[in-house]
Amino acid sequence: MERLTIVKVGGKVVEKPELLQRLLADFSRISGNKLLVHGGGKSATAMAERLGIETKMINGRRITDEAMLEVVIMVYAGLVNKKVVAGLQALNCNAIGLTGADMDLIRAKKRPVVDIDYGFAGDIIDVSTRELESIIDQGVVPVIAPLTHDGNGLMLNTNADTIASELAIALSRKYRVQLIFCFEKKGVLADPEDDHSVIRELDYQKFQEYKETGVITEGMIPKLDNGFSAMRNGVESVVISNPEALGGDLKHGTRLMF
Amino acid sequence: MERLTIVKVGGKVVEKPELLQRLLADFSRISGNKLLVHGGGKSATAMAERLGIETKMINGRRITDEAMLEVVIMVYAGLVNKKVVAGLQALNCNAIGLTGADMDLIRAKKRPVVDIDYGFAGDIIDVSTRELESIIDQGVVPVIAPLTHDGNGLMLNTNADTIASELAIALSRKYRVQLIFCFEKKGVLADPEDDHSVIRELDYQKFQEYKETGVITEGMIPKLDNGFSAMRNGVESVVISNPEALGGDLKHGTRLMF
Repeated sequence: MERLTIVKVGGKVVEKPELLQRLLADFSRISGNKLLVHGGGKSATAMAERLGIETKMINGRRITDEAMLEVVIMVYAGLVNKKVVAGLQALNCNAIGLTGADMDLIRAKKRPVVDIDYGFAGDIIDVSTRELESIIDQGVVPVIAPLTHDGNGLMLNTNADTIASELAIALSRKYRVQLIFCFEKKGVLADPEDDHSVIRELDYQKFQEYKETGVITEGMIPKLDNGFSAMRNGVESVVISNPEALGGDLKHGTRLMF
Repeated sequence: MERLTIVKVGGKVVEKPELLQRLLADFSRISGNKLLVHGGGKSATAMAERLGIETKMINGRRITDEAMLEVVIMVYAGLVNKKVVAGLQALNCNAIGLTGADMDLIRAKKRPVVDIDYGFAGDIIDVSTRELESIIDQGVVPVIAPLTHDGNGLMLNTNADTIASELAIALSRKYRVQLIFCFEKKGVLADPEDDHSVIRELDYQKFQEYKETGVITEGMIPKLDNGFSAMRNGVESVVISNPEALGGDLKHGTRLMF
C-alpha cells in the first residue's frame, strides 16, 4: 500500500498571508501522495460582515442560514480554495480544488433540528473516493473546501475536521493514511497557558480523563473525537500539531495512540 | 476518436434559476463525453454592488482591479460553479468544477497595458489537458469557471468564450469536438430585431461581409472570432444557438462553415 498524507489546516493558519505561504511551502515538500483540507471560517465571517450579514455561532459552530450559505460557498470554494490551489501551483505542486459536490465526493444530509437549528449544515452520510483515488494516483494533489452536497442540488456547510477524518477513513482502504490536524498550537497542551506543555502521546482513556478534569476543553474535543474515530477505522496515524511539523519529523505534535 | 461536446453558456442563461434548471436538464441528457464552460458576469456585477465595488466595463470587457478580482473568484469559482455542479449531480451527471488553476489546466499572462488597463485579466498562453482527459475518460463531466492562473500564484479573470474555444482546440487532439456557444438568441441573426432571422450557415468570408455591413455587431464578433479559430484548429463543428439546441438536433442554431 502506498502512503497518503492528509493535512487539515485550520482558519488561523490558512488565512494570514505570511502563515499561508509558509504552510504551502512546507506542505508542498511532503513526499508522496498528499491531500489538503482547509477551513476558512474567519474569512467567511469577515465577508459576511462586509455584506451586512450577521454571523451567529452556537457551541463554536456556525449557524448557516441561506444568506450565510452563499457566503461560505463563495469564500470556501472560491476565495480560500483558489488562493491555496494557485499558491501550490506556483510551488510546482499540481493541486486541484474540490468540494464534496465535485465528483459526488461527499454527500451529506441537512442536520436535523433538535434543540438548535444549524441551518444548512451538513452531516456526512457517504464518501465516494473512486475518482479521487484516480486523481491522486496521477500525482495530482486534492485541496478540499469544507462543503458537501445533499444529492438534490443543495450545497451544505460541513466541519473541515470531520471532512478530513472521513476522507482519511475512506482512503485508508487503498492507502496507508497519515492524518495531520494543523492548528496554531504545537499540539494538545496539558496546560493551555504553557505552549511547551505538549502531550506527546494521547490514548483514548487518557483523553477521557483529560476531558473530565478539564485539561482538554471545548474546541479540541471534536477534533480529538474525529482523530480517534479515524484511528479506530483504519487510519495509520493521527497527529495534532502546528504547521512546523510538516517540514520535519513530526516530533513537535501530539500523536494519538490506539 | 470519441466525441466530446463542449457547451459554453453565457451569463443570461446560467444566472436565472428557471433557465439554469432547464439548461442543466438539457445538458445532462447529451450523450457521450461532455464539458460545460460557464460565465457569471451578471452575478459578479450584482455581488460587487452589494460590496460597494463599482463595475467598470470597456468594450464589453470587465476592468478587474484587485477588489473585483476577489469578487469574480468568489462568484465564478464559488457561487456559480458550485450551483451548476450540485445541480448536475442532482441530475445524476457526475460533474467536477474546475478553474484554469486546477491541475494547471490553463495558464495565462496578465494582459499588458496598451491603451486600456484591464487589470487582472488573463490572456491564455498554455492549455494542459492530460489530467482533464483522464477525468473525462472516467465519465466525469468538467464544469469550467472563467478563471485562469499565471503560474506564480495569481488568479486571472478570463473570457469564457475564449476558454471554451481554447479548450476545444486542445481537446481536439484526442476527441472529435463539437463546440456549442449557448446564449439567449436562437443563433446569429441577419436582423437583430427579428428572432426568426437566424443565419443557418456562416463561413468566414460571409462573416467578414456581415461585419462590414454592420449585420453582425459588437458582442457577437469576439464569439465568432473564437468560433472560427476553433474551426481552423481541429474542432469538428461549432454552433451558436440558444439552449434549446442541446435537447434536440441543433437545427435551430448557426453552424460555422470551414
